[in-house]
Amino acid sequence: MQPGHIYKKTEIVGTSESSLSDAIERAVARACRTLRHVDRFEVVETRGTVRDGKVESYQVVLKIGFRLED
Amino acid sequence: MQPGHIYKKTEIVGTSESSLSDAIERAVARACRTLRHVDRFEVVETRGTVRDGKVESYQVVLKIGFRLED
Amino acid sequence: MQPGHIYKKTEIVGTSESSLSDAIERAVARACRTLRHVDRFEVVETRGTVRDGKVESYQVVLKIGFRLED
Amino acid sequence: MQPGHIYKKTEIVGTSESSLSDAIERAVARACRTLRHVDRFEVVETRGTVRDGKVESYQVVLKIGFRLED
Amino acid sequence: MQPGHIYKKTEIVGTSESSLSDAIERAVARACRTLRHVDRFEVVETRGTVRDGKVESYQVVLKIGFRLED
Amino acid sequence: MQPGHIYKKTEIVGTSESSLSDAIERAVARACRTLRHVDRFEVVETRGTVRDGKVESYQVVLKIGFRLED
Amino acid sequence: MQPGHIYKKTEIVGTSESSLSDAIERAVARACRTLRHVDRFEVVETRGTVRDGKVESYQVVLKIGFRLED
Amino acid sequence: MQPGHIYKKTEIVGTSESSLSDAIERAVARACRTLRHVDRFEVVETRGTVRDGKVESYQVVLKIGFRLED
Amino acid sequence: MQPGHIYKKTEIVGTSESSLSDAIERAVARACRTLRHVDRFEVVETRGTVRDGKVESYQVVLKIGFRLED
Amino acid sequence: MQPGHIYKKTEIVGTSESSLSDAIERAVARACRTLRHVDRFEVVETRGTVRDGKVESYQVVLKIGFRLED
Amino acid sequence: MQPGHIYKKTEIVGTSESSLSDAIERAVARACRTLRHVDRFEVVETRGTVRDGKVESYQVVLKIGFRLED
Amino acid sequence: MQPGHIYKKTEIVGTSESSLSDAIERAVARACRTLRHVDRFEVVETRGTVRDGKVESYQVVLKIGFRLED
Repeated sequence: MQPGHIYKKTEIVGTSESSLSDAIERAVARACRTLRHVDRFEVVETRGTVRDGKVESYQVVLKIGFRLED
Repeated sequence: MQPGHIYKKTEIVGTSESSLSDAIERAVARACRTLRHVDRFEVVETRGTVRDGKVESYQVVLKIGFRLED
Repeated sequence: MQPGHIYKKTEIVGTSESSLSDAIERAVARACRTLRHVDRFEVVETRGTVRDGKVESYQVVLKIGFRLED
Repeated sequence: MQPGHIYKKTEIVGTSESSLSDAIERAVARACRTLRHVDRFEVVETRGTVRDGKVESYQVVLKIGFRLED
Repeated sequence: MQPGHIYKKTEIVGTSESSLSDAIERAVARACRTLRHVDRFEVVETRGTVRDGKVESYQVVLKIGFRLED
Repeated sequence: MQPGHIYKKTEIVGTSESSLSDAIERAVARACRTLRHVDRFEVVETRGTVRDGKVESYQVVLKIGFRLED
Repeated sequence: MQPGHIYKKTEIVGTSESSLSDAIERAVARACRTLRHVDRFEVVETRGTVRDGKVESYQVVLKIGFRLED
Repeated sequence: MQPGHIYKKTEIVGTSESSLSDAIERAVARACRTLRHVDRFEVVETRGTVRDGKVESYQVVLKIGFRLED
Repeated sequence: MQPGHIYKKTEIVGTSESSLSDAIERAVARACRTLRHVDRFEVVETRGTVRDGKVESYQVVLKIGFRLED
Repeated sequence: MQPGHIYKKTEIVGTSESSLSDAIERAVARACRTLRHVDRFEVVETRGTVRDGKVESYQVVLKIGFRLED
Repeated sequence: MQPGHIYKKTEIVGTSESSLSDAIERAVARACRTLRHVDRFEVVETRGTVRDGKVESYQVVLKIGFRLED
Repeated sequence: MQPGHIYKKTEIVGTSESSLSDAIERAVARACRTLRHVDRFEVVETRGTVRDGKVESYQVVLKIGFRLED
């Protein structure tokens, strides 16, 4: 974060059938489709669903940070 | 949450003079007027105001979750 | 809790279409069907689902405390 | 809270056999009998007791805020 | 917060080279350029960067609260 | 979670020499061998052991949620 | 806590040169000199001071709960 | 804190139109008008109000610690 | 914890009239009467009751960890 | 941890362009270059940076535990 | 933080008689005298001492982050 | 803590087969062998191991505070 700039954080949940990282990457990619200047994320929660004795999906709650335009 | 979808969370505060549940319901109803695909909420904080020795209003801070369109 | 006794805590989630209290009461009633000497609970989380712009269900996560027999 | 004023917070536990809101209202009413200028509360903990498979009482721990006189 | 109204909270990060208060004030001013009815804030995190053995910038993460129009 | 149902949460620790996801998947698979109707998990802690300068094992503490039969 | 009663919590710090339990017992004894109907405590923090390479004192922060008279 | 002494903590909220430090100092000064032997404070929360796009007031919630007389 | 094994955690409350350690030891001993392979514990909460100005009992909430058989 | 031994914890941040596990492994490997008897870690925070709509790096904050020599 | 680098965090407490910012700046300056590549800090706790009804000193607990050399 | 001084905190885990206090005292004694001006500690976690149905060891995680030389 550069001095003088203002940033915003928004909370996004990515889901994936394959892995935690894939859930993170999908959330980041989706956020970048509608937000500009996204430059960081924090993981705030990791969850998932189970079906037939297996992990069915991973859900990762992220805080996405992006710079507001002046 | 269905695998493959991306969700967003937003923080809304409902207020009510009558009850905690009414405050939750009003916040949910208001959120649904401007957001589509709202499907869940979490209570993150419960507060209120007092006047003349009685509860004047209940304030419930909710995280509202909704699915983003692809 | 009486000195000399040992207690156990277990986590139960009650759901209800009508209210938070109803969700708590259903969780307590269900816990008491299989556990003996239940004597307290703590609310650890309050959530719910939304459908068609309204609260569809309340979900209350409780810790249920019960005394173990000697 | 108005600028220039000083407030105090005190922790009160209300109990009720009927509901969470009743426990909150009783705690607020009791606090106002001995404190002046009470104008807000926050719920910090929700608990209860169980007897014969039913909720016997609700206990709500509140922080009560009141303005100190100058 | 007035009974009957609904509020929203959004997370903003203010930065400043001079002080914590300046970082807060810049975040508030920026938020008010795009949001109406902003009436409160909470500090949720305080951080900063260091360069050449000195504080280079202060970063203050705020939750900004504003009333939604009916 | 469906309205009207009651769920239980239990805490399981999965370990794996290969990855975090493998630790999660092993914990889920083991839980499903003795519990019915498991449908969700939350990660509550991530730890591990080190030997000879390398990660020897990952330990993931999960809360496993399952529906109780009526 | 009995249904219908109202309780208050107050924060007391006990110190002792000999042990944690002694610090707790001294804080409880002191609280009971000025408060009536004290019936419970919770430990919220444990600290201490060091002098000449040894524990000089234990400090235990307690929340003390007592019933308010009607 | 000196071994053998007992301390109490009380929660005070200072407000100021000018700065965070001023809010802290006012709360401390006010607490000292009615309490003796105040010797420490901890900041537990920082908030404020906004009016016309500017910080109108800072609110700082403090825990004030003071020694009880024997 | 050994790689490849799965562990479970359960929450037990030990009580004792004499000391915190005695409360821990009683909870551990009781847990081991019905669980096999118990190998660790964590203290999650420390409380107690007061009677006639003295500590009447200590209550220690423990998480007990034990290895599940394959 | 073996009875009688003393351990130390230190906080390390590993970064990686490829995955969370790689960030953990790099932090562990680096810590072991300067510390002896490292035998455990805990993940305390997971963050990352974003560039051009993609995860640019993962940052994992670890607490590293190692035994002190007598 | 740049991908591929490893960072360390250490906890420092700065004190000042004049202000919170001065306490932060002194802690940062002192840390930089013995550590190289310090580039960030987080405030984890804010406390102080009181004497004669006034703030005598501010104490700010910081986590200081610095890059380890390869 | 005296105004003008800078302190550091470090995390140490003491273990003992006999009691919590012994674990604390051993950690403090060990820290003082390599650090100067240690003057306080905080307990951040209490754990232990179990063997043959009994507490085998207590583990207490402490933050140790010491003054840095100018």
